[in-house]
Amino acid sequence: MDKPSYEISPWQLRWCGLDLEELRRTESTFALANGHIGLRGTLEEGEPRGLPGTYLNGFYEQRRLPYAEAGYGFPEDGQTVVNVTDGKIIRLLVEDEPLDMRYGRALDHTRVLDFRSGTLRRCTEWESPTGRRVRITSERLVSFTQRAIAAIHYTVEPLDDKIQLVIQSDLLANEPVASRTEDPRVAAALDKPLVSDHASARGYRAVLAHHTKASGLRMAAAMDHELHLDHDNIRTEIRAEHDLARLTVAADIPKGSKLSLTKYLAYGWSSQRSSAALRAQVDAALVGALQTGWDGLLAEQRSFLDEFWDTADIEVEGDAELQQAVRFALFHVLQAGARGETRAIPAKGLTGPGYDGHAFWDTESFVLPVLTYTIPDAARDALRWRYSTLDKARARAKTLCQDGAAFPWRSINGEECSGYWPAGTAAFHINADIADAVMRYLYATQDKPFESECAVELLVETARLWMSIGHHDTHGRFRIDGVTGPDEYTAVVDNNVYTNLMARRNLRAAAALAEDNPSLAHELGVDTEEASRWRDAADDMVVLYDKDLMVHPQSECFTDHARWDFHNTPVEKYPLLLNYPYFDLYRKQVVKQADLVLALHVCGDEFTPEQKARNFAYYEALTVRDSSLSACTQAVMAAEVGHMELAYDYFAEAALTDLHDLHDNVQNGLHIASLAGAWIATVAGFGGMRDHHGKLSFAPRLPPELTKITFRMTFRGSKIGVEIRPDRVAYRLHSGEPLELCHHGDQFTLGTEPVILPIPDLPGNPAPHQPHGRAPVRRRPR
Amino acid sequence: MDKPSYEISPWQLRWCGLDLEELRRTESTFALANGHIGLRGTLEEGEPRGLPGTYLNGFYEQRRLPYAEAGYGFPEDGQTVVNVTDGKIIRLLVEDEPLDMRYGRALDHTRVLDFRSGTLRRCTEWESPTGRRVRITSERLVSFTQRAIAAIHYTVEPLDDKIQLVIQSDLLANEPVASRTEDPRVAAALDKPLVSDHASARGYRAVLAHHTKASGLRMAAAMDHELHLDHDNIRTEIRAEHDLARLTVAADIPKGSKLSLTKYLAYGWSSQRSSAALRAQVDAALVGALQTGWDGLLAEQRSFLDEFWDTADIEVEGDAELQQAVRFALFHVLQAGARGETRAIPAKGLTGPGYDGHAFWDTESFVLPVLTYTIPDAARDALRWRYSTLDKARARAKTLCQDGAAFPWRSINGEECSGYWPAGTAAFHINADIADAVMRYLYATQDKPFESECAVELLVETARLWMSIGHHDTHGRFRIDGVTGPDEYTAVVDNNVYTNLMARRNLRAAAALAEDNPSLAHELGVDTEEASRWRDAADDMVVLYDKDLMVHPQSECFTDHARWDFHNTPVEKYPLLLNYPYFDLYRKQVVKQADLVLALHVCGDEFTPEQKARNFAYYEALTVRDSSLSACTQAVMAAEVGHMELAYDYFAEAALTDLHDLHDNVQNGLHIASLAGAWIATVAGFGGMRDHHGKLSFAPRLPPELTKITFRMTFRGSKIGVEIRPDRVAYRLHSGEPLELCHHGDQFTLGTEPVILPIPDLPGNPAPHQPHGRAPVRRRPR
Repeated sequence: MDKPSYEISPWQLRWCGLDLEELRRTESTFALANGHIGLRGTLEEGEPRGLPGTYLNGFYEQRRLPYAEAGYGFPEDGQTVVNVTDGKIIRLLVEDEPLDMRYGRALDHTRVLDFRSGTLRRCTEWESPTGRRVRITSERLVSFTQRAIAAIHYTVEPLDDKIQLVIQSDLLANEPVASRTEDPRVAAALDKPLVSDHASARGYRAVLAHHTKASGLRMAAAMDHELHLDHDNIRTEIRAEHDLARLTVAADIPKGSKLSLTKYLAYGWSSQRSSAALRAQVDAALVGALQTGWDGLLAEQRSFLDEFWDTADIEVEGDAELQQAVRFALFHVLQAGARGETRAIPAKGLTGPGYDGHAFWDTESFVLPVLTYTIPDAARDALRWRYSTLDKARARAKTLCQDGAAFPWRSINGEECSGYWPAGTAAFHINADIADAVMRYLYATQDKPFESECAVELLVETARLWMSIGHHDTHGRFRIDGVTGPDEYTAVVDNNVYTNLMARRNLRAAAALAEDNPSLAHELGVDTEEASRWRDAADDMVVLYDKDLMVHPQSECFTDHARWDFHNTPVEKYPLLLNYPYFDLYRKQVVKQADLVLALHVCGDEFTPEQKARNFAYYEALTVRDSSLSACTQAVMAAEVGHMELAYDYFAEAALTDLHDLHDNVQNGLHIASLAGAWIATVAGFGGMRDHHGKLSFAPRLPPELTKITFRMTFRGSKIGVEIRPDRVAYRLHSGEPLELCHHGDQFTLGTEPVILPIPDLPGNPAPHQPHGRAPVRRRPR
Repeated sequence: MDKPSYEISPWQLRWCGLDLEELRRTESTFALANGHIGLRGTLEEGEPRGLPGTYLNGFYEQRRLPYAEAGYGFPEDGQTVVNVTDGKIIRLLVEDEPLDMRYGRALDHTRVLDFRSGTLRRCTEWESPTGRRVRITSERLVSFTQRAIAAIHYTVEPLDDKIQLVIQSDLLANEPVASRTEDPRVAAALDKPLVSDHASARGYRAVLAHHTKASGLRMAAAMDHELHLDHDNIRTEIRAEHDLARLTVAADIPKGSKLSLTKYLAYGWSSQRSSAALRAQVDAALVGALQTGWDGLLAEQRSFLDEFWDTADIEVEGDAELQQAVRFALFHVLQAGARGETRAIPAKGLTGPGYDGHAFWDTESFVLPVLTYTIPDAARDALRWRYSTLDKARARAKTLCQDGAAFPWRSINGEECSGYWPAGTAAFHINADIADAVMRYLYATQDKPFESECAVELLVETARLWMSIGHHDTHGRFRIDGVTGPDEYTAVVDNNVYTNLMARRNLRAAAALAEDNPSLAHELGVDTEEASRWRDAADDMVVLYDKDLMVHPQSECFTDHARWDFHNTPVEKYPLLLNYPYFDLYRKQVVKQADLVLALHVCGDEFTPEQKARNFAYYEALTVRDSSLSACTQAVMAAEVGHMELAYDYFAEAALTDLHDLHDNVQNGLHIASLAGAWIATVAGFGGMRDHHGKLSFAPRLPPELTKITFRMTFRGSKIGVEIRPDRVAYRLHSGEPLELCHHGDQFTLGTEPVILPIPDLPGNPAPHQPHGRAPVRRRPR
C-alpha cells in the first residue's frame, strides 16, 4: 500500500489531512447519491478538484459512433452521461482572499462519509496566505426520502479576530471538464452540452433550466437557502443568467460567532415534460424540503438507513478494515440503487463518468442479487427499468434478425451503445442474466403484480431470443453458436457453457411462468407448443465436457487452445487488453474474469462437487482478473471447494477494489458491481448462500483469520440473521414468518427460536495455483 | 440484361452511341493503365463524367482511422488512393459554344478499347445547340514501354463551314470529387489533398509539382504538345498556376481541314526524392516521348502487346461474347500488373478509387497465377513489392505478439489499413497465399536471383509466423486457432482447413528452401532444429473431417452450425453483409466465397476425387457468391468434378463481372481478381491446369456449348499452346525446351511435335444445388 489510506472505523469512511493528489480518488469514494441524483465528493469551493460531477440518472448526451469500417447493425449513436448543473458549489472569500486549499495552510482537514447518517461531513481549519484563520464545517446529503433533493449545511467561523466573509452559493452549468477522449468529435459533443432555456432568481431562490443539444433532454436545477447568523448585519444579492445562478452573502463576523447557511437543491429532468413543468417540479420539491428543514432531512435520512442496516448489515469480526470496507460497499450499492425508480443502475452508479455512465450486465448479475435480499423494492425498480426498455430490445432483436428481445450490452436509455460488437452485441448472456434476476426477485418476494406486469413478458421475450439464436444440430443437441460469454478474453465462440446453462434456465423459467399465467401467456402468443419447444431446447442444451481433462471447457475447443505464456508476461503488461491484441487473447487459454467459474456459482446445481473442485482449479490457473467482476466469484467458489484462505484473499480484493484503488481508475467512479461483490463474497462465499430455483440454502464457513461473521438478509418478507463462528452457525429469524432453509445440505425450519448448527469438516481439495504474478495479495487482517 | 451493352468483337471493346448514364461504368472498363499510371476513360472534355480519375500506383493520402471502441494494435492510420493531377483534359470551344455532350446532339459517338493496339479511340460527331457540326477523333495510350508516359492524339474537323476552334489542354490538380463516404473527416482529408510546390510553363510545355498534406508524398506532372495544322494561322498561350496549367490554341479551320494535337504526359512521384528531382524526371521522360513521337509510341505499344498475346492469348470458339470478355480480362490484368515495378497491384488496378486503392490477397491468389504464366516478370515485380514491405510486416507481427512477418490485409504502402480486425488482421492466410505465390513463381521460372534475394526470406518469415500462431495441443496435433479464412461470412475460427493446408505448404516449402540455401538460411538464423519444427508442424497439422457427413468442415464446428435460411432470404437482401449482422452470418452455415472449395483447387493434392465431389456439392449448397472472388474457383472445381455446364456458367459469371456490372459497382473500378478469374476458369477449369509443387498437369474438357478453347502459357521459358476440342486435346510447344507434362493423370513429354491426346469420360457425379435464388445464370452462348 503506497497510497495514503483511509482511517479505519466501523461505520465511517474518514480521511484526515490534506492530500491534493488524492482528491480525484476521494471525490468518488465520498460521492453521495440516491439513485436519482449523484454528487461527487468535490470540495464546496469547487477547486482544486479532479473531476466535478453532478449526475442525474438517465440524463445523457448523444453522439455519432465512428467506425473505421462499419457493418450492418452497428449502433449509430452513443450516449454519454452529462455533468449537469453543479449546485454543490459554495465559494468563500475571507476578507480579500478566496478560500483555496492549494494556497495558505490547512491546519486541520477532515472528511467523513457516515454510513448511518448518510451524510458527508467536512471540517477544515484554514490559514490564508496572509495568516487569517477560519474554520469551515459542512455536511451534505442527497436525500433517500425526498428523491429530488440534496442539501448542504455550511458554516464558517473566524478563529482569530472579527473578519469579513463573502459566501457565493452557485448553480453552475457547463463547467469545463477535462476531456477523457482522444476523439475530437466526442470531446466537441460533450463540451458545453447544455443549452439554456430559462434562468431566474428571487430572494434566496434561483432556478436554471437547460436542454441537451443532441439528445434533446430537458432539466431544471433550483436552489434555495436559509441563513443562520447571530446578527443581521448582512448583505445579500442574487442573480441568474444562462449558465450561472448565484446567491452572494456578505457579513462581518466577530470572533466567537459564525455564519451558517443551509443550501437546498432540487433537480428534475425529462424527455417528455416541458421546461416550465420541470421548473414547477423543482420549485415544489424545494418548498417541500424547506418545510422539512435541514434537521428533518437529517432525521429522515438516518431513519431510512437504520431500516436498511437492520435488514442488511454485515459484521466482520477480526478484520476491522474489511468491516469498514463491507459497510462502505453496502452503502454505495444502496446509493446506486435506492431511488433509481425505473432508471438503470450504471456500472459506476452516479459516482463518476466512467464507462460513459452506461449500465451493463453488472446490474442484474452482481448488484441485483444484493438488492434483492437487502432492499427488494430497489431490485424491482431496476428490473422495471429493463421492462420499460423492452420495445427497444425487441427492435434491437429485429435488427439482429432474431426473435424476442435483445437487451443492450451497454446503454443509458435502453438502446445499444456498444461500438465493438464481439465484446458487446455478441454477449447475449445479458438476456439470460436479466431473466435470472427477474426469477431471483420473484422467488425472493413472491411479488405477484410484478410477475404479471413485467416478469412473464420479460421471460417470454428472452426465451424467444434463445430459440432463435440457438438451434438443434443433426444430432438433436441444442447449440448456441457465435456468442461471447462473460470472459472478455474470448469472443464469438460456440456453446459457451455459462451462456448455455443460463439460457437453459431462462427457457425453463419462461415455460413455467407461462404455465402459471395462462391468460397472460396467451396474450403474448405463447401456446403449449412454444412452451414445449422451450423445455425441449433446455433439455437438449449442449453442455461441453472434456473427458480427458475431466473439466468443462469454457466453450468449444477452449481446452485445446494454447495456454497463455504467463511466465513471460511481465506484471506491467496487465491488464492484458491494453498490451496485447484481441486476436492473441481470444485464441489462447487466458481468462479475464470468472466465466465457467461464474457458472459454477450461479448454476451450481448443474455440477457435482468433484466437477466444481476440478473446474475451479483448472480455471484458477488461467484467470488473470483484469476485470473487477471476478474476485468475488472466485471468493465464492474458493469457499465452496474449501480453500478458505484463498476465499478470504479474494473477498478482500473485491471489498477493497475502490478503497485501495486496485485498478487505478477510481477517479472515474466506483466499481459498483465489485462493491456488490463484497456482499456476495460474504453471503454466498462464507455464508454459502445459494438460491437455486428459490430454495434458500447456506453452507457457512469462516476463513481462519476471522472469528465471526454475521449477516442479515430478507426473504419473502422475513428478516433473518446468520452468525458464523469457527465451529457453528446461529440462524435467527428477526421478523416475519418461519422459513424453510438448508444448512450444509440439511433442511431445517427457522422459526422464532435461533437454530444453532455445527460446521462440517472442510473438503480436502489440493490448493489451486494462479497465473504467474496474478495470485491475490495474501490478506493480513488489519 | 437491362443495361445497354457493348458490341461484341474479338479484339475490341466497342460502345456505339451516347448514354450519359453509362459513362461512369465505361470510365472503368475503358480505363488505360500500365501498372504505374492509370487514366479512367473519361471524355477529353472532362465533363460529363462519373468520376475523374488519374492514379499513380502507390501514391496515397493518409488519415486517422476512427473507432467507436478502440483496441490494442488496431491500425491508427488509413491510406486512400489520390486522384492526382489530371492531364487527360482537352476542352474545346466551337465558335462560342463549349463542346459538352449534355447539350446539342451526338450524331455519332463511338469509343473503342483495342486490345492489340493498347489504345482507347474515340470518334464523335457533334452538333452544337446552334447547329454547328464538328468531328472529334482521339486516341489515347498509357505506354507499356515508356512507364512514365501517357499520350493523347486529338483531332477536330469542322463538318460544315469554316469554323473557329479554341482548344484548352490542361493539367488540373485537386479536381472536386464527389465524396464516397459519410464520414466528414475522411471527406475532409481527401478534399484537395494536393499542395502545390511548383508550377511553370514555357512554349507548349508545362509542369505542376505537388505534395500530399498528411502522407507527405511528392509528385510532378508535365505535359508537352505537338500541333498539326494545314496552315499557320494559329494563336497559342500557355500558363501555369498552383493547381492548373493550360495550353490554349485558337485557330480558324476551313472545311476539309482539321486541327490536330498530340499531348504527351509524364508523371513521377516519390516519398524520398525532392520536388526538383521529380520535375527533372518528368521533363526527361517528356523529351524521350517526344523523341519517340506519337507513331513511335503506338508502334512500341503494339509490339509489346503482340508479344503478350503471343504468350498468353485465349481463343474461345462458340461464344463470341466470352471470347471478347476473356481478352478484355487479360488486357486489364496486364494493365494492372505490367509495369508496377515494386508497387502493389491494387484490387481495382488503377481503374477507380474502390477499396481506397488497396491491395489484398487477391493479388497473390488470383492475379499472380495469371501473370506467372503469361508475363512472369510482372509476377516477380509484384512479389518484390511484398518483399520490399517485409520490415513493415515484421513490425506488424511484433505488434500482434507474433514471430516472423504478418503482411497487411489491405494496404497501399505495406502498413495494415484494415479497420475491422475480424475480417482483416485475423485473415492470416494472406501470408501463406504470398508464400504460395512465391513458390509458384519459382517453380515456373527457376529464377535463382529472386530465390536468393527475396524468396528464402519471405518463406522463412511466413513460416515463423505460422509457428507462433499455431501450437501443438495435448494430443500432438498442430492447431491454428482464432483466424479468419477466405470466407468472410465466418470469422475468428479454429482450424480453418484452407488456412491450415496453406500453412502446411508454407512450412514445408520454407524448410525445403532453407535446405537448398544453407548459407542464406544460416544468415536468417534458421538452423536444422527450426526447419525440423516446421516439417513436424506441417506433418501434425489438423485437417478437420466430419465423418458423419463425409465432408471437410470449413473450420471447427462449421457443419454443426445452423444452415442459413436461404428460402426466406429475398433476392434483394443480397449481398447479405449489407442486410444482416455479422453476428448472424458468422454463426451459420452460409459461405460468401469459395473457402473450402478454394482449398480443393489450390491444395487439390490433399483431397481424393471422391472428397472433392462430396465437398463441392456440400459447399455449393451454401455459397452465395457475395464476393467476386468465388465464381472462378467454383468454375474450376465444377469442371474437375464433372459439372461442365455449371463450370461454363461460373466461367461466364467471372468473365462478365465487370462488363455486365454484376455487382453494380463497376463505376468504382474493375474487379481485377475476377478478371484474372476468367483466365483461371479457362486454364485451370476447362484446361484442368494444376501446378502442385511445380509439376504442370492438365485435364482438359470442354463444356458442351463450346467447340474449341485454345490457350497459351509460358513455363520455364517455354511457350506452349493447348487446344481443347470436344474429344481430344492438342498440346504444342511454340518455343523453348521440351516439357514434362501430364494429361488427365498420364505423363508425357511435349517436344517440337504436337501431342494429341483423347479426353476420358466425365466422372458421373450428381448435379449439385445452389442456395435458393443464387444459382448462376444459365449461360446461353452469344
